[in-house]
Amino acid sequence: MSLITVGTMAFDAIETPFGKVDRIVGGSATYVAYAASNFVKPVQQISIVGYDFPQEEMEALQARGVQTEGVEVVADKKSFFWSGKYHIDMNTRDTLVTDLNVLEDFNPIVPEAYQGAEFLMLGNLMPKLQLSVIDQLKVRPKLIVMDTMNFWMDIAMDDLKEVLKKVDVLLVNDGEARQLSEEVSLVKAARKILEMGPKFLIIKKGEHGALLFHENHVFFAPALPLEEVFDPTGAGDTFAGGFIGYLAKTKDISFENMKTAIIIGSAMASFCVEKFGPERMKEITKADIDERLSQFVQLVNFDIDLV
Amino acid sequence: MSLITVGTMAFDAIETPFGKVDRIVGGSATYVAYAASNFVKPVQQISIVGYDFPQEEMEALQARGVQTEGVEVVADKKSFFWSGKYHIDMNTRDTLVTDLNVLEDFNPIVPEAYQGAEFLMLGNLMPKLQLSVIDQLKVRPKLIVMDTMNFWMDIAMDDLKEVLKKVDVLLVNDGEARQLSEEVSLVKAARKILEMGPKFLIIKKGEHGALLFHENHVFFAPALPLEEVFDPTGAGDTFAGGFIGYLAKTKDISFENMKTAIIIGSAMASFCVEKFGPERMKEITKADIDERLSQFVQLVNFDIDLV
Repeated sequence: MSLITVGTMAFDAIETPFGKVDRIVGGSATYVAYAASNFVKPVQQISIVGYDFPQEEMEALQARGVQTEGVEVVADKKSFFWSGKYHIDMNTRDTLVTDLNVLEDFNPIVPEAYQGAEFLMLGNLMPKLQLSVIDQLKVRPKLIVMDTMNFWMDIAMDDLKEVLKKVDVLLVNDGEARQLSEEVSLVKAARKILEMGPKFLIIKKGEHGALLFHENHVFFAPALPLEEVFDPTGAGDTFAGGFIGYLAKTKDISFENMKTAIIIGSAMASFCVEKFGPERMKEITKADIDERLSQFVQLVNFDIDLV
Repeated sequence: MSLITVGTMAFDAIETPFGKVDRIVGGSATYVAYAASNFVKPVQQISIVGYDFPQEEMEALQARGVQTEGVEVVADKKSFFWSGKYHIDMNTRDTLVTDLNVLEDFNPIVPEAYQGAEFLMLGNLMPKLQLSVIDQLKVRPKLIVMDTMNFWMDIAMDDLKEVLKKVDVLLVNDGEARQLSEEVSLVKAARKILEMGPKFLIIKKGEHGALLFHENHVFFAPALPLEEVFDPTGAGDTFAGGFIGYLAKTKDISFENMKTAIIIGSAMASFCVEKFGPERMKEITKADIDERLSQFVQLVNFDIDLV
């Protein structure tokens, strides 16, 4: 049951109240691949990197069942570089540097070997590029999940709305849901967004969990209360990777199974924030994941007889 | 299984983005009584009002099984009056007027007929008054739940810490938990506060739900995603009333049963915010409550087989 994931692979420089790293591997597709590869193989990566992207990082992904045939390597340019500094509350950050480098030329090509994938994860990218990937697929995947961000709503809303018509699940944060719908109430925002195309909407609220909307149903998954959030970079992409990875593993795209998939995504994100970049994602085992999932069950499970 | 509830009974003037009321009954003990009386009778009220408090409001409470022998009526003073205006996001508000009136003289006296109550809800009040109520009880209740606020942390922290040593459950919001513990992380804050006396700590996060901490356990109850929050006034007290009312009904103060009680509290709070003041609390039926509880089960229930 293969999964195509499209997005950035990059270098990040990150500063949090707990420390800083000058250069660590990042990018949406990197985080998605690390999370999803715990559940499904192959993960078929589509991205672009420069001459400076370390071969051992590529090999580390390959060793986890990530196919990199769709990762273009540009010989004379550097990889995408992002630098940011988190505020003391960790909920907000300032972007210090965005060097697009290879990303300026990104024109994602779906390799022939990837055709027939049943699951597609469109990481946060220019909407036109997301659309191009969908159009290249000869058979529509069983499920298309799309991430995006406020930046594209500011400069490419029309394109974004075109993509929305073609996807099954949209992933945004609460601020983006409000911007896209022009509604303050998330319940009203969800209703409007579900009329734009997606059959499912996930609204991520960071440390406050995530909501899944579908028709008139709503499901809530909490974030695990953590002693320290060390570095939130990549948590949203890791959430997405856990979510679609679990769906691809179980081949079940019902609302009921998506509830479980969101809990899985939340669990994966709770690991991601424990160390800088994807470091923690490289370490965790199946036993770690099972233990964390048990914590989620404990966190929200209750018995009730109606009064 | 009687429950004593101590707190204010007042008039409020409230302005929200949806409208305004110049004079509506409010006060922490009023909201607690409306919520708790759905589950347990009698609710034994201790409060103070002025000559202007409407007799029909007192009778409405009595008709629900609320005993008002402990409510002092001051013949020559007005009732406590609070006026506030909510900001557009409904999460913050400005206090416009606080007329203490009768509250300046409040010296709560526990009527003889209330002695022997097994549950005690100490609404948000000056810590010395909370302590005085505990000291008047000849037999310590099975469970003492205490609410407080940042104001008392600012001006009466030492007294507050004395009360904390004598209660079982502390209810605060996230900002107050941080102020009391001097920790940013709520997990760390909880650990510190549980060392100050209470065996259980509930951290209310408004629209983001509530956390229950006990020893090394944590439970999370979401708030129901609502289309509109019409008026948040009293939601925290209503939550407290549902929580302790359910515990008093079931006579079970285990961590497991407190999980259910928190869901009950969240459900009651979700009604409270639907109309101004306690209006909605006066209308709801057992069937309404059962239906809302089903929505909570739907909201958080998921199946998981460990991966």
